[in-house]
Amino acid sequence: MNHTARLIISCPDQRGLVARVSDFVSRNGGNILHFDQHTDLADGVFLARVEWELESFRIPRERIRDCFQGIALECGMQFDLAFSDHVPKVAILASKLPHCLQDLLLRQRAGELKAEIALVISNHAEAGKIAQSFGIPFRHFPITRADKTQQEAAEIEAIQSAGAELVVLARYMQILSESFVKAFPNRIINIHHSFLPAFVGAQPYHQAFARGVKLIGATAHYVTSELDNGPIIDQEIARVSHRDSVDDLIRKGRDLEKIALARAVRLHLMQRVLTYGNKTVIFD
Amino acid sequence: MNHTARLIISCPDQRGLVARVSDFVSRNGGNILHFDQHTDLADGVFLARVEWELESFRIPRERIRDCFQGIALECGMQFDLAFSDHVPKVAILASKLPHCLQDLLLRQRAGELKAEIALVISNHAEAGKIAQSFGIPFRHFPITRADKTQQEAAEIEAIQSAGAELVVLARYMQILSESFVKAFPNRIINIHHSFLPAFVGAQPYHQAFARGVKLIGATAHYVTSELDNGPIIDQEIARVSHRDSVDDLIRKGRDLEKIALARAVRLHLMQRVLTYGNKTVIFD
Amino acid sequence: MNHTARLIISCPDQRGLVARVSDFVSRNGGNILHFDQHTDLADGVFLARVEWELESFRIPRERIRDCFQGIALECGMQFDLAFSDHVPKVAILASKLPHCLQDLLLRQRAGELKAEIALVISNHAEAGKIAQSFGIPFRHFPITRADKTQQEAAEIEAIQSAGAELVVLARYMQILSESFVKAFPNRIINIHHSFLPAFVGAQPYHQAFARGVKLIGATAHYVTSELDNGPIIDQEIARVSHRDSVDDLIRKGRDLEKIALARAVRLHLMQRVLTYGNKTVIFD
Amino acid sequence: MNHTARLIISCPDQRGLVARVSDFVSRNGGNILHFDQHTDLADGVFLARVEWELESFRIPRERIRDCFQGIALECGMQFDLAFSDHVPKVAILASKLPHCLQDLLLRQRAGELKAEIALVISNHAEAGKIAQSFGIPFRHFPITRADKTQQEAAEIEAIQSAGAELVVLARYMQILSESFVKAFPNRIINIHHSFLPAFVGAQPYHQAFARGVKLIGATAHYVTSELDNGPIIDQEIARVSHRDSVDDLIRKGRDLEKIALARAVRLHLMQRVLTYGNKTVIFD
Repeated sequence: MNHTARLIISCPDQRGLVARVSDFVSRNGGNILHFDQHTDLADGVFLARVEWELESFRIPRERIRDCFQGIALECGMQFDLAFSDHVPKVAILASKLPHCLQDLLLRQRAGELKAEIALVISNHAEAGKIAQSFGIPFRHFPITRADKTQQEAAEIEAIQSAGAELVVLARYMQILSESFVKAFPNRIINIHHSFLPAFVGAQPYHQAFARGVKLIGATAHYVTSELDNGPIIDQEIARVSHRDSVDDLIRKGRDLEKIALARAVRLHLMQRVLTYGNKTVIFD
Repeated sequence: MNHTARLIISCPDQRGLVARVSDFVSRNGGNILHFDQHTDLADGVFLARVEWELESFRIPRERIRDCFQGIALECGMQFDLAFSDHVPKVAILASKLPHCLQDLLLRQRAGELKAEIALVISNHAEAGKIAQSFGIPFRHFPITRADKTQQEAAEIEAIQSAGAELVVLARYMQILSESFVKAFPNRIINIHHSFLPAFVGAQPYHQAFARGVKLIGATAHYVTSELDNGPIIDQEIARVSHRDSVDDLIRKGRDLEKIALARAVRLHLMQRVLTYGNKTVIFD
Repeated sequence: MNHTARLIISCPDQRGLVARVSDFVSRNGGNILHFDQHTDLADGVFLARVEWELESFRIPRERIRDCFQGIALECGMQFDLAFSDHVPKVAILASKLPHCLQDLLLRQRAGELKAEIALVISNHAEAGKIAQSFGIPFRHFPITRADKTQQEAAEIEAIQSAGAELVVLARYMQILSESFVKAFPNRIINIHHSFLPAFVGAQPYHQAFARGVKLIGATAHYVTSELDNGPIIDQEIARVSHRDSVDDLIRKGRDLEKIALARAVRLHLMQRVLTYGNKTVIFD
Repeated sequence: MNHTARLIISCPDQRGLVARVSDFVSRNGGNILHFDQHTDLADGVFLARVEWELESFRIPRERIRDCFQGIALECGMQFDLAFSDHVPKVAILASKLPHCLQDLLLRQRAGELKAEIALVISNHAEAGKIAQSFGIPFRHFPITRADKTQQEAAEIEAIQSAGAELVVLARYMQILSESFVKAFPNRIINIHHSFLPAFVGAQPYHQAFARGVKLIGATAHYVTSELDNGPIIDQEIARVSHRDSVDDLIRKGRDLEKIALARAVRLHLMQRVLTYGNKTVIFD
């Protein structure tokens, strides 16, 4: 298949936006494969994703951004441009529980995630073995209350040195400081093991068990400085009953966590997620 | 099919409970159709539901309760006994939105709910037409802040006079007072239009929209004096996206509400729900 | 909200289609609310749905079709044009089971289906009462093997006289002849009570029970001359267990049938379904 | 937790079965943790699963079977007895696709599957690396049309030598001969990558794509001599749309396959599946 360009746009709604954007592509010889668009009528916001074949496109890759800038300025657009053959680097942070880490590594190997896993970080040494078995660099940052600030700084440094464009928290059980979050805006995806906003905070399966819910969930979301309150990318649920102990909820929940997180990471890597306010538009 | 007796039991776990209960039935000539049992190992509680054919049972119906009392006392059991051919009376309370009321009435007529709808009550006159078209008595209790106490007292009186054993809040938008709740312990079922405990209180679909969730839900639960916090009987969910407006959530939610509420009422009417602490055991 | 025009397009894929279509709208002063597009890369087919506000659009409604014809011819497009304030007439055919008929009538009344139910037809007299209670014309066409051809001809005549643009088979248990199907191409929606293509033909719930499946389903599809093989619009499923008898499957299935059929009819009425080969594209 | 005995029973329905079985346990000092029972009223079959604590049970393990034999003979019971601390040996057969094999191995390691994976067999050498990385014996049996009979005989021999009580086909793409199936009656679990009975046979995702279904599925079932027609243990589904290519169906389906297969294997290992006719009773 040909390589493609993917353009993500948001701006105040106004007449002629679809025409202007599609005309930009067509006039320059591009063949549009996907044009997804959504207008938030309440807030008057135009949101779109355009993907076109690069083969016949007459503007060289490195100049597309500049060429589009004129339209963007005129229409007040924020935009993001990516290419389908770019393989972004990803850092995965994990703690003791290995299932999400293993799952992401297996999916990457199976070709489901177009990314290079550049680095695995953990506050526990055990994750190192898993990283090693996949041939992926591993950094161990044990964190105590006393050294959290320094360790986080070292983590940020390691992630940036590795060139990671996306940080995935694969059941990473440390709360990130605001400066960590700010270092990777809209580029940290977390999996929370509940159907948010139910059961914010610690031990959500225990909370769910205590409340006697009949469905449990998992939520993949971007991390913001407000705990468990960032824009939701995907959610998944499963039915439970009185026969399920807390351990059963934890076991059933692992599948939900793996699936919701993997789906969110995949959507992000394919430039199918547009964050907007505290919400996401998913162009799937 | 033969008529059956249904016995619901909870007591401290101890050796020999299944044998004692099943022996009571067998020794007296009963044929057990269903024996469902659950042991809460954490709390050491035994919970069971037994259903047996009455035809060959040698104890007359009206004496079964007394005959079982000995075992119950010895084992510290709480129990409830009902017969499959008993058709309990039900009162439905509704407000402006008719969908749950209509749905319950249609299901009752279709034979899904073994109950007599003895009374429809509403704080709005519109529900009267629906009740009338099904030939069901209707009482209109408009409620203002000033007369809420008297109106509620009149409602309780009307429900009790009608002989209703179950009160169903079919999108009834008034918060019940504690004295109302106490008049019908574990016998008021409400449908809350969210995936509890997310979005407690007013306008949950608006809350869900604002939070940008990817799944919405509905929760059928027993009403206790603590708002939206009673034992959950059933929950149902549906996927939503950025394309869904608040109105779309409300529309999609109606189906969830109808299904979760109808399922909960049906389970209750078949003596398949055992409340226990703030949870339910569903023998389905 | 302003009224809108909805244009559904399919044609061989080629460069510049999005631009040409959106330019047509913008150049004439229209504001595009939704632009949904899908390219079938395997078959090289371009499929799109465009919706724009009519208020500022400079081409009068009755001339839009002609004005677009030039582009359509040039690009080899098949297209369909509709307006959001057009309320199409619908005929519903039912047999003995009332649930889908009642459900559609209630949804129409609740504003979920922007349509006028112009006519209810049944081979059983019972449906007449339901139609009457909603104030909708009813025609009774009892069908025997001997008079099927004449009765069908009379049905077609009745549907056409009523001006119905869509025919909905709401658990209508007669197999339509080829001439009936041809009278309303891509305009007959049926609900089949199984997860097609499993359990084609008669008594699918009995078939499902005999096979011991753990999930049952319902399928809304366009009717073609090949039984149960038309383009699928929507499917819905529910979990079942060994505890469910055939009657339980039938009962649980009713909810699936209502929901899948209502969703399919709604999508059709909003011009969100594009049939293509033996498949559908759903612009939701 | 204490070790338990698990007794699975099926027999013609008759009075007093629950009492007889539970009395057998209680009289001998056992504490029943779970008593699950189902009566198939249509066929007049009684099916039950009883689990009790061994600690206080006065009959030694090795004599329980004999002691129960009297009741079994009298009531015409078929029964199966197992102990919770028995760790059965399992053989996994895989072909090229590794996801189900990896998934089972990871779940076993995570403690979800109480089993020893004694052997991995494949007709492709690649699976050997995976087995090796988990420290599990691997046998490579490449199969050609000419040597299929001998190779199968060797496989049976290998499985039996390894002491495997359960054979799991983890996307094993060879059709087993009747003699293979007969060597492990009701002890071979397969995952079929469709929602059976839809899309029997080869390339079900291609079939699903061609039919334009809106949901895809996976089915875990016992293998019988009739292809894809054995008793269904579990099924799982996911929603798809026109945007999904065959490759997308295959990718989405992998998660369904992993989950349905793992759940079925887990249920089997916990003696929660009772096969009966061509169906299963799942005591969950």
